[in-house]
Amino acid sequence: MGQRQSCIGSITGSSSLSNQKKFYLSEDRLPTHWYNIQADLPKDLPPVLNPGTLQPVGPPDLSPLFPMALILQEVSKERYVEIPEPVREVYRIWRPSPLIRAHALEKALGTKAKIFYKYEGVSPAGSHKPNTAVPQAYYNKIEGTKLLTTETGAGQWGCSLAFAGKHFDIPVEIYQVKVSYEQKPYRRAFMETFGAKCYPSPSDRTKAGRDVLAKDPKSPGSLGIAISEAVECAATSEDTKYALGSVLNHVLMHQTVTGLEAIEQMALAGEYPDVLVGCTGGGSNFGGLCFPFLGQKFRKEAKKNFRVLAVEPASCPSLTKGKYAYDFGDTGQMTPLIKSHTLGHTFMPPPAHAGGLRYHAMAPLISHLHELGFLEAESVAQIEAFEAGALFAKTEGILPAPEANHAIAGAIREAKKAKDGEVILFNLCGHGHFDMTAWTAFNEGKLVDHAYPEAEIAMALSCIPTIPEN
Amino acid sequence: MGQRQSCIGSITGSSSLSNQKKFYLSEDRLPTHWYNIQADLPKDLPPVLNPGTLQPVGPPDLSPLFPMALILQEVSKERYVEIPEPVREVYRIWRPSPLIRAHALEKALGTKAKIFYKYEGVSPAGSHKPNTAVPQAYYNKIEGTKLLTTETGAGQWGCSLAFAGKHFDIPVEIYQVKVSYEQKPYRRAFMETFGAKCYPSPSDRTKAGRDVLAKDPKSPGSLGIAISEAVECAATSEDTKYALGSVLNHVLMHQTVTGLEAIEQMALAGEYPDVLVGCTGGGSNFGGLCFPFLGQKFRKEAKKNFRVLAVEPASCPSLTKGKYAYDFGDTGQMTPLIKSHTLGHTFMPPPAHAGGLRYHAMAPLISHLHELGFLEAESVAQIEAFEAGALFAKTEGILPAPEANHAIAGAIREAKKAKDGEVILFNLCGHGHFDMTAWTAFNEGKLVDHAYPEAEIAMALSCIPTIPEN
Repeated sequence: MGQRQSCIGSITGSSSLSNQKKFYLSEDRLPTHWYNIQADLPKDLPPVLNPGTLQPVGPPDLSPLFPMALILQEVSKERYVEIPEPVREVYRIWRPSPLIRAHALEKALGTKAKIFYKYEGVSPAGSHKPNTAVPQAYYNKIEGTKLLTTETGAGQWGCSLAFAGKHFDIPVEIYQVKVSYEQKPYRRAFMETFGAKCYPSPSDRTKAGRDVLAKDPKSPGSLGIAISEAVECAATSEDTKYALGSVLNHVLMHQTVTGLEAIEQMALAGEYPDVLVGCTGGGSNFGGLCFPFLGQKFRKEAKKNFRVLAVEPASCPSLTKGKYAYDFGDTGQMTPLIKSHTLGHTFMPPPAHAGGLRYHAMAPLISHLHELGFLEAESVAQIEAFEAGALFAKTEGILPAPEANHAIAGAIREAKKAKDGEVILFNLCGHGHFDMTAWTAFNEGKLVDHAYPEAEIAMALSCIPTIPEN
Repeated sequence: MGQRQSCIGSITGSSSLSNQKKFYLSEDRLPTHWYNIQADLPKDLPPVLNPGTLQPVGPPDLSPLFPMALILQEVSKERYVEIPEPVREVYRIWRPSPLIRAHALEKALGTKAKIFYKYEGVSPAGSHKPNTAVPQAYYNKIEGTKLLTTETGAGQWGCSLAFAGKHFDIPVEIYQVKVSYEQKPYRRAFMETFGAKCYPSPSDRTKAGRDVLAKDPKSPGSLGIAISEAVECAATSEDTKYALGSVLNHVLMHQTVTGLEAIEQMALAGEYPDVLVGCTGGGSNFGGLCFPFLGQKFRKEAKKNFRVLAVEPASCPSLTKGKYAYDFGDTGQMTPLIKSHTLGHTFMPPPAHAGGLRYHAMAPLISHLHELGFLEAESVAQIEAFEAGALFAKTEGILPAPEANHAIAGAIREAKKAKDGEVILFNLCGHGHFDMTAWTAFNEGKLVDHAYPEAEIAMALSCIPTIPEN
């Protein structure tokens, strides 16, 4: 309709940049490449080690688990890695995701800061996870994988891989941490609607699961155990591969579509962040937002000197209370040794509701950047996180995931001490529509702050293997 | 960042109009006015009658229930009614909503049609309902209302009013149809997170509820009963008003933001619909999409001659099996008499999962247009609806609400018989994240098609009051 209707808003109306709420990019601005921060790191990442030989792991060591394209991405130093067109086609279902100015939250806080958030909850799974699930399914498809196995905590990763598997016609089997499987039955229905099969972990389907159940038949499970189960399935079967939803370098690289879009969108808003905030479990939503900005800093292209803040749950504080050391990525010691901030691969976090943040270790890239002084970390207790999320829901109209509540709590802490005009950007990594058990507990005043698991952490830290420094 | 990054998509890339998926309007194109179809109707709407005098109801009769601004909108013939700026400010949290081309669904169907959908699930409540909840709360606020009561079926309307009440600082009490209250416990948690109070209906808090419980203590409830309860609270208390989520003229008018945006967005896509499809319970999401297009038809501005198709559940088929007659809007006979397609105000639909479509009557405006021959109606059984929704989820990545499944089923029926290049536009009125009980039943093969309630409908039709024709 070329003609202009009288009831449609006028360009000269009330919508100036300062009261514009949502900043969309058109689909033709969807990134064509991911950003690989390994190209710009001031110091190389320590290698991943074979636990037997303590020698660096090479691509052939990983080939039972992953397709070669992903293994090569894991160690690549190419700055920009092209996103295959079939992946971009699926990305376009929800991407570019919106950047939103939190006007109503700002008003409720009475802050002098400008708060922006990148909203990844618009994806099919309701979180940032499909950003990597889709390319992982794609590369597996073209290399002939017949079955994908994975673990899931909150269920968001499982939903994402189920959706991606459906798009590229690969069956998906999911080991879901038992406490989440029980707390979030509807996540399972969601995964099954996309055609995946789900098992509560620890299960009796794998040796790793049976070993745990023999020691503790009531084990609530952990991401570490579920990873062992999924990895075992892939390692012991031809044509079956494993997909990991966080931690690894290629996963964080896939997530950089978030930050690449955010850089363009902040420019549309006429702003540049003074502080970037994200919640950290394995580190992927946080890395996805921050790495492209950090890349600008490393290449001296950043518009401002900015801070980067990782917010983790007080009940699973790998960055703030962990040891920077080589450790296994899973409870069953199936993985190579990875250098990162770890609470020890035997650490069993308390059953907090942010299932996606209950991992004993941090992504090597995030850990490395923390060691180099490029990012700060804080921990937030469960109730503070939910109070922040509830205020956000009432003002901004989006009910956040328990994981995302931690990022909101961090952003609110920053906003409360902000100088006039300070710009805060955080990653709202997902909605909480499948976390209503947790929100019900919060509404009814039944949510607890788990005691800081000091003894458990001390015990788990003591189980970290000793590696001679070279 | 003025500089162009090498990893961001190029305008000359793969994104032409024909493979563009999402069509966004910028916030400055948010409509400034609602469209009032009463200005353009070829024949006036029959008046609403006082059940005692059988005389037309005047504004004073309605003032115990509604603020005067809404009562005047109910009978207005002004073509465009201005949207107050405080309402537009809240609309901008999620509006304009996206128009999306269903490329992946088209491919799965092998259809020659182009299928577009307007997606209202991006709102805070996950459906189209906040489009009217927000202005209703606003007009109540400025006229001094201290408490809002309402009913809710699926829970989507309750969530919407809870959110809107929070924004304009008015407490909200919600009578939720008992079968939905029990099937969808998480909807209640959602409403409570926004600060509302919920009661299962029939309740012992009102005379209307107590009367039903006396006859049938195990009554599953119905929208009709819940309306009686909420209306009774408003009618018997100063400063308490009632809000209705569908059926009324002003509600359908508020929903026209959807169709007004869709007209602009279809133009962005370079298309104009051959057929418009929506699901109908009370009729508001359907009217919201169709009325602005029908207005173009009435004013001879439409680009094409198009069809309009209402899709209702076979278990509650007011348009296809109801009588066009004056009837009460509620079970307890608290409301005026309204001329519409009705199954009888005593009709109790079977407990199908599309709680939002379980209403005995249709909006007067929709009924009137159906009588005048401007729209068609079909009914769809529950399993066909969910099969359509499941295919949509797997292809388009959005898990639809059970109500929306009916619109998808209607669109798929049209697509299967479409001529080359035919353009189908439907309203995807909400997501199904709070309907996982229903999706679980579907996944497990436990969903049933309720037998057509022939005897119940015959009985209810016989209870429609006899009004002498004037």
